[in-house]
Amino acid sequence: MPKPEPALMKDITALCKRRGIIYPSSEIYGGFANTWDYGPYGVLLKNNVKKIWWEDMVMKRTDIVGLDSAILMNPKIWEASGHLTQFTDPLIECKKCHARFRIEQSLDKCPTCQAIELTEAKQFNLMFKTYVGPEESGTNTVYLRPETAQGIFANFKNVLDSTRVKLPFGIAQIGKAFRNEITPGNFTFRTLEFEQFELEYFIYPKDADTEFKTWRQARLDWYVGLGINKHKLRLQDHEQAKLAHYAKAVSDIEYKFPFGWSELEGIANRGDYDLSQHQKFSGQDLQYFNEDTKEKILPYVIEPSGGVDRATLAFLVDAYSKEKVNKSSPPAGGGAGGGGSEVRTVLKLHPKLAPIKVAILPLVKKDPELVKMAKGIYEELKQNFFVEYDEDGTVGKRYRRQDEIGTPFCITIDSDSLTDKTVTIRHRDSMQQERINSAELGDWLKDKLNS
Amino acid sequence: MPKPEPALMKDITALCKRRGIIYPSSEIYGGFANTWDYGPYGVLLKNNVKKIWWEDMVMKRTDIVGLDSAILMNPKIWEASGHLTQFTDPLIECKKCHARFRIEQSLDKCPTCQAIELTEAKQFNLMFKTYVGPEESGTNTVYLRPETAQGIFANFKNVLDSTRVKLPFGIAQIGKAFRNEITPGNFTFRTLEFEQFELEYFIYPKDADTEFKTWRQARLDWYVGLGINKHKLRLQDHEQAKLAHYAKAVSDIEYKFPFGWSELEGIANRGDYDLSQHQKFSGQDLQYFNEDTKEKILPYVIEPSGGVDRATLAFLVDAYSKEKVNKSSPPAGGGAGGGGSEVRTVLKLHPKLAPIKVAILPLVKKDPELVKMAKGIYEELKQNFFVEYDEDGTVGKRYRRQDEIGTPFCITIDSDSLTDKTVTIRHRDSMQQERINSAELGDWLKDKLNS
Repeated sequence: MPKPEPALMKDITALCKRRGIIYPSSEIYGGFANTWDYGPYGVLLKNNVKKIWWEDMVMKRTDIVGLDSAILMNPKIWEASGHLTQFTDPLIECKKCHARFRIEQSLDKCPTCQAIELTEAKQFNLMFKTYVGPEESGTNTVYLRPETAQGIFANFKNVLDSTRVKLPFGIAQIGKAFRNEITPGNFTFRTLEFEQFELEYFIYPKDADTEFKTWRQARLDWYVGLGINKHKLRLQDHEQAKLAHYAKAVSDIEYKFPFGWSELEGIANRGDYDLSQHQKFSGQDLQYFNEDTKEKILPYVIEPSGGVDRATLAFLVDAYSKEKVNKSSPPAGGGAGGGGSEVRTVLKLHPKLAPIKVAILPLVKKDPELVKMAKGIYEELKQNFFVEYDEDGTVGKRYRRQDEIGTPFCITIDSDSLTDKTVTIRHRDSMQQERINSAELGDWLKDKLNS
Repeated sequence: MPKPEPALMKDITALCKRRGIIYPSSEIYGGFANTWDYGPYGVLLKNNVKKIWWEDMVMKRTDIVGLDSAILMNPKIWEASGHLTQFTDPLIECKKCHARFRIEQSLDKCPTCQAIELTEAKQFNLMFKTYVGPEESGTNTVYLRPETAQGIFANFKNVLDSTRVKLPFGIAQIGKAFRNEITPGNFTFRTLEFEQFELEYFIYPKDADTEFKTWRQARLDWYVGLGINKHKLRLQDHEQAKLAHYAKAVSDIEYKFPFGWSELEGIANRGDYDLSQHQKFSGQDLQYFNEDTKEKILPYVIEPSGGVDRATLAFLVDAYSKEKVNKSSPPAGGGAGGGGSEVRTVLKLHPKLAPIKVAILPLVKKDPELVKMAKGIYEELKQNFFVEYDEDGTVGKRYRRQDEIGTPFCITIDSDSLTDKTVTIRHRDSMQQERINSAELGDWLKDKLNS
């Protein structure tokens, strides 16, 4: 029987903590406001998500350049973008203890002090505020960016002036953003501080519908290509009547989390809203000069905007599985070994995403020759890959440890290895084993990680 | 005659803007408080700095794991670390206009309004403050971290409990930090928002002096290994009497910038200050259990703490050169071509650091066969490397463009290439050219980038 789903999130959260993937932040001080820290394996997983996105967007494409703009920017940017006036949540306040709550809760009394007098809903801005310089006054107020996108629009002219980009072209960015929300939790899904990967793809206005459809599909395919079960992904188009003020069309990529279908990434046709606002507020000419027609135009933009933490969580949740296996022997025929007597937890992460690509396990830790050979292989492989050396406990126990952090390949070195220089590769998902020459390991691994 | 050095920084800043390396942040709105954005080439350069540090610290070593902790943490962390009380600057305030200034300026009147009545110096905390939740009150106050290090100490127990680390071991982290300083500018050297690479290397207390010396040297060597002129680097030991409250010994790695010798990285022996403070303030046992002696101890820590932006700036400044070259022909004997008639600007970046590894230049843009071959090479190489395709202008002009962004290799495809499949590789620094078979390009490049 499948586990009730809240329990499943609990299991995944516990595994993440136990195995050094994700910890509650500031935990020794009782934690902090739905904030999480990535542990030794989690940071490698998250880095892989960012690296793959960056390579797919910037390195492998001919038409997209990168950018890394600051978190603290001139506050006029948020005036122009509309965030200062429109990026708000309606909140209800308790007249007695002044605690504030989301309107969706439909309260009859204050959940904090039980008083019954509550105010009408008022709008509160979701941007975190701080002050530059020692004085805490209006003129010194700045905001932690609530999205990385505006840093791209603010640099549109700089990129045009300093590179050879031609329409259509994109500017891609990965970075932290902050939203002062009352969050429902759900592990790392919604947090005050989060990382985004955002692409602003500038186009001729006439191509907007086509490009919107192309990007919507391309971004969905990206998640599938990295191993997410396609039946747990869907595209949800926003209704025209409910679109945000800046958008002409929006479609969300949703993943079926244990807590329900939830947004991983939004693809929006933002028209020329942002560039025209910044043109108006800055007084600068942000038009693109078309060298063929000799005309100046304000491009439209298609924005695929995703959450790095959300993508990472979706990869984790989708990869998480528990299965019965026989304790000692691998299953016949390459299946995952149903019907066995022991349960293993395994993260079936795509090899490109796996934090550790391969673990080196000497069969016997007390044999110096064997340990020497194992360490030699380890030293060599870790010049190019994230590799782990593990001699603690039985091989079965070591396999389980590597399964739980998603290591796709375990290499055992045994007494035969000393004579014939071959080693055993054990595949995480099938638990099948194969024997290969140790000198070929580097190429074998490179091949597996690029396919 | 060498250029006066302030003019040199101006030249480098201008090059960075013109070539898409670093832009003034929020520039269309008149900029913002010594903040800078990394453009298409700058983000690749900075990413390379981070990637190399991460690979050298985490991937290639057996004894260091990574971490990625949050920027917003439980404020008790800053109480324990001493930042809430001790991380301050003394400032003088104008009694008339309330502008505040650093004490070092020794003012006789207010530089803003010219009033002569100024207060005595008062301490102002350098942490940026913000509020979680809609209320701006004391209990909701949190801080933007002024260093990434405390996120490591706060997770020390989690890492011990969830991984197999054994003393000595390190925890490495790269991330943003924020300091509300009155900054003197100097391009990206000192900014309100900056990125750190920090390593906390935990050791047995008896090994502190040895480890301190080892790390001091290792970190100096790291910069030299990435091409920085070793005569422009020095180690400066702090005087024992002037050490910060948490430190038993500190040594700075300084680079000779045009604005003077300035700190790139500090190596500190922090003793057990941080762990003992967090133990005291959190009430948690943060001791390490030594399985051999069965004793519990509080480890000492050696901290090499560097600035990613500062390292990036040092690499840029050190790589920047202007030299006279002959317009058409490469210099004989591999020299940089002194005594020529034209001046070229070139960033002699280490190939590992260079934003673009290779540029593909078809000699004639109107020859479809030649363009087809050039694009084929481009398409293939950019699956694995950051590569640029450039057919705009004369080859000489294209070389200069690539020189200015530090591209180590340019590949030209000419009519001979169509028949014999060879291409010309032009080396950035020597401007020497060699002819190689186009099928070997990928391996040739891999080899050059790994040496």
